[in-house]
Amino acid sequence: MKAKNYVLGVDIGTTATKSVLFSVTGSVLQQSTLNYPLSSPNPLTAEQNPEEIFIAVLQTIFSVILESQIDPEEIICLSFSSAMHSLIAVDVEGNLLTQSLTWADRRGEKWVNLLKEEGRENELYRLTGIPFHPMSPLIKLVWLRNEYPDLFYRAAKFISIKEYIIFQLFDRYLIDTSLAAATGLLNLHTLTWCEEALNIAGITPDRLSEIVPTTYILPSLNRERAIAVGIPEGIPTVIGSSDGVLANLGVGAIYPKTIAVTIGTSGAVRTVSDRLQLDEKNKLFCYPLIENYWIIGGAVNNGGIVMQWLKENLIELAGVEGYDQLNAIAQTIPAGSEGLIFHPYLTGERAPLWDSHARGSFFGFTLNHTKAHLIRAVLEGIIYNLSIVLLSLEKFTGKSEKIIASGGFTRSPLLRQMLADIVNCPVIIPDRQESSCFGAAILGLYALKKIPTLEIISTTRAKKQQYFPIPENVAIYQKILPIYQNLLDRFQLEWVKLPSSFEP
Amino acid sequence: MKAKNYVLGVDIGTTATKSVLFSVTGSVLQQSTLNYPLSSPNPLTAEQNPEEIFIAVLQTIFSVILESQIDPEEIICLSFSSAMHSLIAVDVEGNLLTQSLTWADRRGEKWVNLLKEEGRENELYRLTGIPFHPMSPLIKLVWLRNEYPDLFYRAAKFISIKEYIIFQLFDRYLIDTSLAAATGLLNLHTLTWCEEALNIAGITPDRLSEIVPTTYILPSLNRERAIAVGIPEGIPTVIGSSDGVLANLGVGAIYPKTIAVTIGTSGAVRTVSDRLQLDEKNKLFCYPLIENYWIIGGAVNNGGIVMQWLKENLIELAGVEGYDQLNAIAQTIPAGSEGLIFHPYLTGERAPLWDSHARGSFFGFTLNHTKAHLIRAVLEGIIYNLSIVLLSLEKFTGKSEKIIASGGFTRSPLLRQMLADIVNCPVIIPDRQESSCFGAAILGLYALKKIPTLEIISTTRAKKQQYFPIPENVAIYQKILPIYQNLLDRFQLEWVKLPSSFEP
Repeated sequence: MKAKNYVLGVDIGTTATKSVLFSVTGSVLQQSTLNYPLSSPNPLTAEQNPEEIFIAVLQTIFSVILESQIDPEEIICLSFSSAMHSLIAVDVEGNLLTQSLTWADRRGEKWVNLLKEEGRENELYRLTGIPFHPMSPLIKLVWLRNEYPDLFYRAAKFISIKEYIIFQLFDRYLIDTSLAAATGLLNLHTLTWCEEALNIAGITPDRLSEIVPTTYILPSLNRERAIAVGIPEGIPTVIGSSDGVLANLGVGAIYPKTIAVTIGTSGAVRTVSDRLQLDEKNKLFCYPLIENYWIIGGAVNNGGIVMQWLKENLIELAGVEGYDQLNAIAQTIPAGSEGLIFHPYLTGERAPLWDSHARGSFFGFTLNHTKAHLIRAVLEGIIYNLSIVLLSLEKFTGKSEKIIASGGFTRSPLLRQMLADIVNCPVIIPDRQESSCFGAAILGLYALKKIPTLEIISTTRAKKQQYFPIPENVAIYQKILPIYQNLLDRFQLEWVKLPSSFEP
Repeated sequence: MKAKNYVLGVDIGTTATKSVLFSVTGSVLQQSTLNYPLSSPNPLTAEQNPEEIFIAVLQTIFSVILESQIDPEEIICLSFSSAMHSLIAVDVEGNLLTQSLTWADRRGEKWVNLLKEEGRENELYRLTGIPFHPMSPLIKLVWLRNEYPDLFYRAAKFISIKEYIIFQLFDRYLIDTSLAAATGLLNLHTLTWCEEALNIAGITPDRLSEIVPTTYILPSLNRERAIAVGIPEGIPTVIGSSDGVLANLGVGAIYPKTIAVTIGTSGAVRTVSDRLQLDEKNKLFCYPLIENYWIIGGAVNNGGIVMQWLKENLIELAGVEGYDQLNAIAQTIPAGSEGLIFHPYLTGERAPLWDSHARGSFFGFTLNHTKAHLIRAVLEGIIYNLSIVLLSLEKFTGKSEKIIASGGFTRSPLLRQMLADIVNCPVIIPDRQESSCFGAAILGLYALKKIPTLEIISTTRAKKQQYFPIPENVAIYQKILPIYQNLLDRFQLEWVKLPSSFEP
């Protein structure tokens, strides 16, 4: 029998599935990515074809193993990461009744408002850790039951995309506790399906999958199935966790006071907690990873998408094509944008507001402000918002000591320095971008008892880029942040008054 | 003796002096304009050379009479309009000790703040109708006394630019009640110099001019003086009034419920009142014209200058050169800019806020907003602000029935329609732009008893362009205006907190 030196992390994302083969010491041997479309025939709909995603999963696994030229027997395990909040209805034979409704699907919005009026949001949040929001599978179920009752009652199971993949491979309906915690249907205190939430959804627990720990090990595929799907036989599969939780593990943000800040199109701030902690005001999430490891944090809508809007809709600059040039222009303006403050809520907001009425704004213009100030103010505003999420996290975890920044938006050195200055904390850039796959791989190794703790690999990583707060900039931002927060409190009272015909 | 058929209005403005020769029926026979510079060696200073202005006055009068080829004996009178709030210190022989400090000079700002802290602003406003503001000659005197005491104590008289011109021609220090009312030194109730204000300024009444009615007639120049200055002898001179007051007269806004809205670089809203009325909250001005005719209104900083800022600093549009093109783009966006609300306070604000900390802002952005929305929102914001001044006026004068719009900014049909829709009142465009000169001419005719009332000429004017409110647009703006006002109230609490290093 060969030495087992490799681990394969598979991340089932919303735009692509990525499979990465790591050595047990954490280096990347091979990777493969396959994109698939998101169908948005109207602004509220955002769904995907589960079969397409299943094929992408198989193909990337197959391709990584093939191209790495290793013997599949050397692979310790496969381990899965997945996007959260998806919902698929299947019939009693496992046939699809719906596409996969992704986190971005907002068709349940009306039911959010109706449920909020009933005043039970905080009660449910205290049980499930998920606010009433269209992304939540709970809301999607309410929407399906009310608007497509035939389909709803015909459905035997309501599953997520990862459950669908697992079912295709193993004929079992299983969900890991991390993903279950993202459905709005899990009682976080007992880690069992939540009776109150199921009552609102109008379902019984038998219509959901069996809940298993994230370290749950599925048997190797037998020869027949392995040949059918094109994955080598004999590789154990660890069910794994969700992409957000595993990203934290993957970048090494599983130490107290170490915070992962991810800014892509949207953004998130997350850290680790040794127990369940819920923040009713800012509605932080708290997802279980393994025993005594919870990932607590907040997801924001308004990350790089706001910069894209600024570039495409608002400014036009001769000769400026890319974000690097915008950042270079922003760099010419001092910290604080000379008093111009941007609130980035162009798409409503999840954390820290949970307000679909939220809007963007620029405050503080004088005749001296220019387009360059606009650009810098937008960058700063995106980070001010994340810093508010961080502040609410710190109520539970204490003052942060280290920020680990990832995501496409943090490629700019200006942004990294700005983040360090605004949150007043050193910022570290991890030397690897495949954080969710790497997190899945670490969890896989832990599940198979190849490593004694989750921390062991995260801490062994090599050279990192660090950005330390610049005191003069910190002083400026410390003056602005309370104004940002005050304005936010005042704006919230007016957003809701904007006539609904103005809504996006 | 020839028939007297002409009247000559002379408007001494901040950028130019304009002299216009009118027939007694109101048609323009000839006009002449001479520009002169405004010296701003730093952002707070804005002064002009009185001798240059005196020469411009003489040259435009000379040139109008010469080019019209009429016999000077046919001229009924000369009558003066003048910009307000200027201050010039002269010694006992009438020599200049300072330049003319214009309304735009802000060097006294520090003293405004100190005086406000003493809490006497409302008391003085109730007496003089002028808030503590750097434009006010009262504040300029406090500044001079404290920062240039030698000069201050050497000065025999403190006069305005019109007093300087009158003194050059007639060797007398005279000020009309309208201009006196703009100094912050006049008791509006008695129309005499205000003891309380003079105490704050630190002067006695003998250092100010003699106050005369606006209809005061100065003798014709004698032959010797007429030859010296190049103005024909034998033409009586009416001292006249201030540019704002005379603009109202000139556009015919001297009927109750008829409002003059002027939007140039800055803006103003004015109407007529039969008595002194003061608004402590919005600090409206109320200037005497003749007995039982007061011009009540508010002057705003943020008119066309905001559009200029938008064009030059904020947006860049390939192939777009002029404001007409910007207006055409704004026209593509529906009324209300789909929920985007702009507050135009880029240069602080006089009416309706009297707040030098005021700043500009955009509120209500979604991902759907574009540059075209920015443009329309800026136009709307400028008018929202003017509409607030109008609302405070209407507390005294009742709901307006007619708006007479003038100034460069109102040349655009889009703007005129927007004004009608936002203030929900028909907008009329006068058929003549020389409104202050024409107002001076009317006042001159009245002073010389050639017309029995001020209204007689204003009402005889010919075809006018009219814009009526469009009900659907009115409905949208009626929803937005309360939000605009609420935001304004909330913003005021935050403007003051912006660190002073950010100040323009």
